[in-house]
Amino acid sequence: MSDNVLVELAVTLESRKNADPCTSYVASLYDKGLDEILKKIGEEATEVIIAAKSGEKTAIIHETADLWFHTLVMLAQQGLGPGDILSELDRRVGISGLEEKVSRQK
Amino acid sequence: MSDNVLVELAVTLESRKNADPCTSYVASLYDKGLDEILKKIGEEATEVIIAAKSGEKTAIIHETADLWFHTLVMLAQQGLGPGDILSELDRRVGISGLEEKVSRQK
Amino acid sequence: MSDNVLVELAVTLESRKNADPCTSYVASLYDKGLDEILKKIGEEATEVIIAAKSGEKTAIIHETADLWFHTLVMLAQQGLGPGDILSELDRRVGISGLEEKVSRQK
Amino acid sequence: MSDNVLVELAVTLESRKNADPCTSYVASLYDKGLDEILKKIGEEATEVIIAAKSGEKTAIIHETADLWFHTLVMLAQQGLGPGDILSELDRRVGISGLEEKVSRQK
Repeated sequence: MSDNVLVELAVTLESRKNADPCTSYVASLYDKGLDEILKKIGEEATEVIIAAKSGEKTAIIHETADLWFHTLVMLAQQGLGPGDILSELDRRVGISGLEEKVSRQK
Repeated sequence: MSDNVLVELAVTLESRKNADPCTSYVASLYDKGLDEILKKIGEEATEVIIAAKSGEKTAIIHETADLWFHTLVMLAQQGLGPGDILSELDRRVGISGLEEKVSRQK
Repeated sequence: MSDNVLVELAVTLESRKNADPCTSYVASLYDKGLDEILKKIGEEATEVIIAAKSGEKTAIIHETADLWFHTLVMLAQQGLGPGDILSELDRRVGISGLEEKVSRQK
Repeated sequence: MSDNVLVELAVTLESRKNADPCTSYVASLYDKGLDEILKKIGEEATEVIIAAKSGEKTAIIHETADLWFHTLVMLAQQGLGPGDILSELDRRVGISGLEEKVSRQK
């Protein structure tokens, strides 16, 4: 496996901006627009929850991959990418450990 | 910035299994159990959707990082990790391009 | 409009337990099982959120009706009905006003 | 128990528009605004799903009541009410049975 699956995937997602919505699933999502991409995020988050409650590890992996995939499509559609998210996660780990999350709680 | 951030984060999340729920946010999530972790996934997915609809890039980054973070906590709690998800994503890109998704649609 | 749309709907949903999944949407949901019904609840909740963020009143009404509808299907599948939910809501209003919600917050 | 519970609840929710956010939970939601109300809808939908997967009937009733409650708050905030949703549901039952849903599927 590559060291940079997310970055490679982002490059592919970017290239799909010029693809035909009839033959590319990702191009069809761009074509339908942001609402449709966000519906997929809501759907896939629900499926992750159901898979985890069912205790089915294969389904958990599959649905979590779907969820991450569609968040990457959303990021690409918004002119963002996995680097933005990884930097944010890195910052949280780096500065103060995971407990940083607590201090930030509403 | 590479996928290594996710792997480093997973190591930290693993180490939190021995931490005190009173001082570690992640340990407190493990302590409350799977349902509580899944509630956070539902919450953060909702916040990603709201941030994207609001068109606020900083909020999109923040909420997507929160969503990925809590999926990583769920994976750790289930004895899984980011490698499982990245392998699945890598497989999809490798075999047949993103269009693989289409063939797999229910 | 009837005084008891929800109750009438529940009667219809109950009768669909004997219907053919090929010709009845509700029977097809029962046939697919609880997970499929819950996926619809996740989807419709997402669509309510997107409609409200878009400020489109017709879509809000449509998607909220879809959300309530699928919660009624879930209740029927679980041997429950709208009366159980209305009693719970009535209890909350009756006893102590909406502020009761606060005292119950986790 | 009839749909009148929803109408009564809507009257109460309307009256909360003039209440003090410090003492009324509903007034505090109005005060925080639409995004906060929508976050609650996402949260409660997640909790309905988790309760149903856990097979806990009391929790299903409780969480479904919470979900309907917060959709009613959203409707009030948007100048809508339960009558709008009940009319839509009534129309679907009236015109063509529940199968109407099928014809409308995307």
